[in-house]
Amino acid sequence: MTVWIHRRADDDVDAEILGAAGSLAGLRLAVKDNVDVAGLPTTAGCPDYAHVPERDAPAVAALRAAGAVVVGKTNLDQFATGLVGTRSPYGVVENVLRPGYVSGGSSSGSAAAAARGEVDIAIGTDTAGSGRVPAAFHGLVGIKPTIGVVSTGGVVPACRSYDCVTIFARDLGTASRAMGVMAAGARGRAWPADTRLAAPPQPVVAVFSELPDLEPEWRKAFERTVAAVREQGATIVEVDPTPFLAAAELLYNGALVAERYSAVGEFVDAHPESVDPTVGSIIRAARDLPAHRLVTDLAALERLRATAMASLAGADVLLTPTTPTHPTIAEVAADPITVNSRLGTYTNFCNLFDLCAVAVPTDTPYFGVTVLARAFEDAVALDVAALITGTELEEPAWPATVAPVTDLIVFGAHLRGQPLEHQLTELGARWSGPVETAPRYRLAALDTVPPKPAVTPVTTMESGVEVAGERWLLSPAALGRFLANLPAPMQLGAVELSDGTWHTGFGCTGAAAESAKDISEYGGWRAALAAGAVG
Amino acid sequence: MTVWIHRRADDDVDAEILGAAGSLAGLRLAVKDNVDVAGLPTTAGCPDYAHVPERDAPAVAALRAAGAVVVGKTNLDQFATGLVGTRSPYGVVENVLRPGYVSGGSSSGSAAAAARGEVDIAIGTDTAGSGRVPAAFHGLVGIKPTIGVVSTGGVVPACRSYDCVTIFARDLGTASRAMGVMAAGARGRAWPADTRLAAPPQPVVAVFSELPDLEPEWRKAFERTVAAVREQGATIVEVDPTPFLAAAELLYNGALVAERYSAVGEFVDAHPESVDPTVGSIIRAARDLPAHRLVTDLAALERLRATAMASLAGADVLLTPTTPTHPTIAEVAADPITVNSRLGTYTNFCNLFDLCAVAVPTDTPYFGVTVLARAFEDAVALDVAALITGTELEEPAWPATVAPVTDLIVFGAHLRGQPLEHQLTELGARWSGPVETAPRYRLAALDTVPPKPAVTPVTTMESGVEVAGERWLLSPAALGRFLANLPAPMQLGAVELSDGTWHTGFGCTGAAAESAKDISEYGGWRAALAAGAVG
Repeated sequence: MTVWIHRRADDDVDAEILGAAGSLAGLRLAVKDNVDVAGLPTTAGCPDYAHVPERDAPAVAALRAAGAVVVGKTNLDQFATGLVGTRSPYGVVENVLRPGYVSGGSSSGSAAAAARGEVDIAIGTDTAGSGRVPAAFHGLVGIKPTIGVVSTGGVVPACRSYDCVTIFARDLGTASRAMGVMAAGARGRAWPADTRLAAPPQPVVAVFSELPDLEPEWRKAFERTVAAVREQGATIVEVDPTPFLAAAELLYNGALVAERYSAVGEFVDAHPESVDPTVGSIIRAARDLPAHRLVTDLAALERLRATAMASLAGADVLLTPTTPTHPTIAEVAADPITVNSRLGTYTNFCNLFDLCAVAVPTDTPYFGVTVLARAFEDAVALDVAALITGTELEEPAWPATVAPVTDLIVFGAHLRGQPLEHQLTELGARWSGPVETAPRYRLAALDTVPPKPAVTPVTTMESGVEVAGERWLLSPAALGRFLANLPAPMQLGAVELSDGTWHTGFGCTGAAAESAKDISEYGGWRAALAAGAVG
Repeated sequence: MTVWIHRRADDDVDAEILGAAGSLAGLRLAVKDNVDVAGLPTTAGCPDYAHVPERDAPAVAALRAAGAVVVGKTNLDQFATGLVGTRSPYGVVENVLRPGYVSGGSSSGSAAAAARGEVDIAIGTDTAGSGRVPAAFHGLVGIKPTIGVVSTGGVVPACRSYDCVTIFARDLGTASRAMGVMAAGARGRAWPADTRLAAPPQPVVAVFSELPDLEPEWRKAFERTVAAVREQGATIVEVDPTPFLAAAELLYNGALVAERYSAVGEFVDAHPESVDPTVGSIIRAARDLPAHRLVTDLAALERLRATAMASLAGADVLLTPTTPTHPTIAEVAADPITVNSRLGTYTNFCNLFDLCAVAVPTDTPYFGVTVLARAFEDAVALDVAALITGTELEEPAWPATVAPVTDLIVFGAHLRGQPLEHQLTELGARWSGPVETAPRYRLAALDTVPPKPAVTPVTTMESGVEVAGERWLLSPAALGRFLANLPAPMQLGAVELSDGTWHTGFGCTGAAAESAKDISEYGGWRAALAAGAVG
């Protein structure tokens, strides 16, 4: 049982924790040993491959800058090639909760360290499921963000095009917080100007119409999860799993494995004794694959992706089991390739299709489910994962701290629960809490359908009130689209809040305000509604 | 001299022209013979490869639906592999304007047909410069749009990842109009929500700090072009050509040529006698390239692209020669590979770096220049090309007809030439012309810096005027960002125009309007400024 490949001295860790400052101050951090930590060897699970980096990988540096403290480097399936946690010369990582069973990989040690409570957060990597499978087997949360939004600098590549840095934690909130820190400041793939920042309150959740290979008990557990989501207002739709599962085949049985040869193939060829036999056989087999077959496979993948994404067009997320089964270490030893492949049934397609994912536990030990969403819809996946796990997320959720965001102050029909709220949630806007204007506004009731308030600044001759409102976060494109569809007499412009800051918010034309009934005395639309003064 | 591979009977074409309707009604259209036209064979320059498609390629179908009439299918470098126009069993396409010299390829026949005046527009394809090189040698405009915004359905692939459908015409306006038709309705790569719709009035134009291999006379011609652009207000900045030229090397000397093998390699292997010797040697050489080398080359390309794009960060466009030289047919025959490669010096990197391009003629015969811009900034490239050629484009330019667009009516400081116009042009907004409000508004002068008008709807008790304004087109994200930065007391909301339509436009808070000086009598801000009533 080798969870750690290199572990720092407890005294050093404890001293650093005492002095830690920042949003993650004192959180213990495990780092998968294919990710650089300055001064500690990076082995990628292969002692002869090791080098000692001078710098932290950017993802590690970001967590440390926020106060997290590195405890050590964790065991993994060598070169991140595997989903089992048994393919390492440092030893098999046994499941922490279920002796004799696999930990899942390739981020086996990171998950095990988190499950044992030795760390609060753990960095993994994920190409085919390595950040999700070991989460499921250990009752952890694993966040696999959109490709490119966390730097893969300082990471030993597995499949360069599909590799992601992931995070494990025992709860969704901690994982999300750490992911936000890793994503902040990463300069890579730019977030689009129309990023959705939230799932709608009643999301449309796609599930596969068939669930091949799933353990019978786990099928029931999955159905319970789906039923619970439906009870919370989600609409469930079924999609054909065929293109998703076909993509999984391409990842290991197609020419895409050439990416693994490109990454470490020369080393593997030169050091046959240093390499795990199973890992070596996979990587060596990729040496002579022709380039034109890779081109053909990539074209086939693109077609599968187009079909799959079209099937998800009406859905906010896809909900799947994370793994179909939980093999024993002996089962893996007896048939290392086949058992490993089965484990990727529900995870392999994710990165190939440019999806993001949040893996969460269920009521059934070792069985997890994964919420998958389109690229850059990490917040949507996160919100549905929060729904499933009953988590209240700290606000704003991490994508809203890194994507382009504007805000909008609303006072009436767009307040949460009011008739036009859906206009904002359909645009992917995220509710951000109550606010009050500076005491220089007048609140009046317009004669519109539905009834809307007129919030207008008072003139120097009048006295004003603080008007209660709510703040929404939304992408610049969502704000532009909202404005483009806004009917007269409503207008948007800068509104001063009680803290002296100015934000985009609702106003209306002077002509409309003039004829509106003054209800300033209520200080807000909800209060006026409650008093029967409007509506 | 074989411009045409298949040409329809003149009577059929003439009859169709008589009955043509639509925005391109009666324009004669040549189609490169690697693009499907229903009922005519698609040979891709290889008789034994031919098939007769049942349907038009979507790009052809769009032009025909708009009234263009197919004259025939044009000769090309076989399988679109070449930049010379000599690699075809149907015969060498000689330059129409300069006997003994190459036409340029691979879209040789399409360019020649347009140069001879036999057609008004001609479809080409472009992977490495095939839609630009023959334009330069024939004094034509060639538009190579952003990859994916015109469907490549019904096109024989050359390098599937980089192929584009292009258009040739004798003037920029016609080419742009046709490109807009081809791009409209194409469902492929989605336009981003922050697409820039125009170049700024004084664009920043990058040029290479060195121009390797350029003919001495052409160097002077290029300098004249740059000087003329500078005189029209552009800022010229120099960038290092190294990463751009290194990418060109990868296209033909790297593993990317495996894409060509993937497209037609099996046919080439099976039919050695049917294939042009030079084209066959290029494609056959790709058969045994290993997939891991393609992976490595793609990673190298991505690094080059990152370096190149960083060097263009402050620039709106890159301006380059289209070709360095104009070889004779005899020179190509003597050394078919090397001479061909030289021709791609300034074109090869474009598609690899995901740039769009507009190739235009200069004052010097056979020498053209190309304006390159970032993906989806086709409108920016088009505007600078219009500046260079002294063209007045029909409005809106084609990207504004296919990208997500909102609009904004302005009345004062954001009118063209007024102090805050730059806030809109910096957001990529496109000026779209004067408008007038419905006669239900009041115009007043606010006490702001710079002076701004208050355009507010009158109440039922007052009489209003039509207020003169201007309309800008801008992306939804640009509108959102503009609003997010708008200071009080200005507001945006729906404004009714004189034609009864409602558009997003400027208003202001009632409090500000109340204390503003009424200048409705002038009917507009410019008139009030001219009369000295404000400012």
